[in-house]
Amino acid sequence: MVTINEVAESAGVSKSTVSRYIAKNGYVGKESALKIESAIKALNFVPNLSARSLKTKRSTIVGLLLPDITNPFFPMLAKGVEEYLQERGYQVLFSNIGDDGRLAEESLKTLVQSNAAGIISTFDFTEKYPDLNIPVVIVDRVGHHSEFGVFADNKAGGRLAAEKILEAGAKHIAVVSGPINAQSVNNRFKSSVAVLEESSAHFRTYYSKDYNFSVVREEAARVLDDYLQVDSIIAPSDIHAIAFIREILGRGLSIPEDIQVIGYDDILMSSFIYPALSTIHQPAYEMGSEAAKMIVELASNRSVHQRQLKLPVYYVERETLRKLGVKHACQEAEKFTPQRGKRPLSAEAQRV
Amino acid sequence: MVTINEVAESAGVSKSTVSRYIAKNGYVGKESALKIESAIKALNFVPNLSARSLKTKRSTIVGLLLPDITNPFFPMLAKGVEEYLQERGYQVLFSNIGDDGRLAEESLKTLVQSNAAGIISTFDFTEKYPDLNIPVVIVDRVGHHSEFGVFADNKAGGRLAAEKILEAGAKHIAVVSGPINAQSVNNRFKSSVAVLEESSAHFRTYYSKDYNFSVVREEAARVLDDYLQVDSIIAPSDIHAIAFIREILGRGLSIPEDIQVIGYDDILMSSFIYPALSTIHQPAYEMGSEAAKMIVELASNRSVHQRQLKLPVYYVERETLRKLGVKHACQEAEKFTPQRGKRPLSAEAQRV
Repeated sequence: MVTINEVAESAGVSKSTVSRYIAKNGYVGKESALKIESAIKALNFVPNLSARSLKTKRSTIVGLLLPDITNPFFPMLAKGVEEYLQERGYQVLFSNIGDDGRLAEESLKTLVQSNAAGIISTFDFTEKYPDLNIPVVIVDRVGHHSEFGVFADNKAGGRLAAEKILEAGAKHIAVVSGPINAQSVNNRFKSSVAVLEESSAHFRTYYSKDYNFSVVREEAARVLDDYLQVDSIIAPSDIHAIAFIREILGRGLSIPEDIQVIGYDDILMSSFIYPALSTIHQPAYEMGSEAAKMIVELASNRSVHQRQLKLPVYYVERETLRKLGVKHACQEAEKFTPQRGKRPLSAEAQRV
Repeated sequence: MVTINEVAESAGVSKSTVSRYIAKNGYVGKESALKIESAIKALNFVPNLSARSLKTKRSTIVGLLLPDITNPFFPMLAKGVEEYLQERGYQVLFSNIGDDGRLAEESLKTLVQSNAAGIISTFDFTEKYPDLNIPVVIVDRVGHHSEFGVFADNKAGGRLAAEKILEAGAKHIAVVSGPINAQSVNNRFKSSVAVLEESSAHFRTYYSKDYNFSVVREEAARVLDDYLQVDSIIAPSDIHAIAFIREILGRGLSIPEDIQVIGYDDILMSSFIYPALSTIHQPAYEMGSEAAKMIVELASNRSVHQRQLKLPVYYVERETLRKLGVKHACQEAEKFTPQRGKRPLSAEAQRV
């Protein structure tokens, strides 16, 4: 194994210069840096990270704590984090911690032990661990107390969903709130409701309990059974929207003619399905890469100007909202309403 | 900060016993272990992993190298790896390396530097790096040269897909080969073709180039345009199958009445969509957890009895294959065939 002494000898600099260069800790002149770099390459020298982190105190490991990587929203966020960090010589230590962060503790212990450079997490545990000496950036589910956060403009997204469905002629709208008690999710829901309250449309609110598909599908069935006049669904996620689509089509109804659906997230699968889901695009990849960028700034002791970074969302028009101008919306909505009589309802459904 | 000396004093054992206990390296009596464990808890002692890995040579980090976490097959595999390792005190260092492993090199360097306990990878780079002194388990895309591997029974899966579609009355079958040149994917395709060759059905073979949805959808359109009599699709993945479903429904055709589709993988989304996808279930979670188990065995210098672990696959009946007994299959297939005249074809499509 090549040692740091051999690198120093080959580069014609002192061992401590090589150490400073490797640890990126302290001044190394440009010329020396170039010499060291070529010596490292020529000798195929691999610095020992464990030795290095003992000296610099910080490793190049960044923790990524997500609720559940099998929730289709998170892989794209994880990719944004991973690609940004990988290019800059950092590595991603990944854990599923659950929606409520209950599995975070073990991971935090590991990250402390590893002298992690930083932590990116959907769950804000910083109040519970005030002495944690590692930079933490909360992503997506940023709360009032989060010091550093990257999130999407949930208020604008919630408004946009309601506006788009009204423009498409919605008269009876089921607004479904997301399954977790997070500010991000609540903000979307409240903003949608605020827009609907200003309109002449009827609406009812529902609360989802889970992201699990069989639960979500049962919930969708219950909404359709409960709100017989419903002609429009504002779903809290694309997963929920896709469950509604399945339930609506399974009842022999058409989308968007009988019932229109708007999702939230714009997961990859939403453009794959038929009909393709009209939805609010969240910048999942960018949230990941911006959070990673913030961690790198913090780990390098550079100041972060914007501690709370809000990224824009936008509407993606596909096939589950009617394509009407605002002017025609009301007339068209009238035309669609009588068709509701076609809907097959079970005896049980009518009892709700 | 609590030191190892304080733990030793509190437990009434020697410092070297505590070291052996923490590093899991060498003999520690049961009684001593219990004493040390309670001392660690009472003092809230956190061993420094960097210091520890310098001594034991191996860290508790396991590399997980996957082609692309946004390919919906991999999150479930990653979850299997992560949950198994997390419970046993190991951490997952995660990288996207591309289908061809082109991004593996940087990650490997890091894992060597971190004294990783092991590597789980879809891409077998072991021939390229014969001196790598870290246990490697190849997962899913295991090749002839892979020393340790966990994979699904691709031959049985390929056969099963062809058998199920024949049982459902397939007469004209498009068999699509997967987009990567891996033994796993080739085995499935060849096994499907072997079954079809033994049958009286007509079939044509196609090769997909990508997992990217817009590419896959165009490919699906080209298959439908090229093979006008096609009544059945054997897709190389659920992503491909879902692209076919979208393209078929978008042409005003019915599934499974006009064209039936069978997928491969059983990703979460396949049960969400309408019609729900009939597919071959791959045990993605189990592949992950079994690979993790093998790594833990290897990292602990325990012998691994089964170096190549093949996991079973099974057929999941949903809504995209006709529900016919084998006996009625041929008669029914005849009935469906005349309907093909309904199919709208563009001028361009007919030119193919």
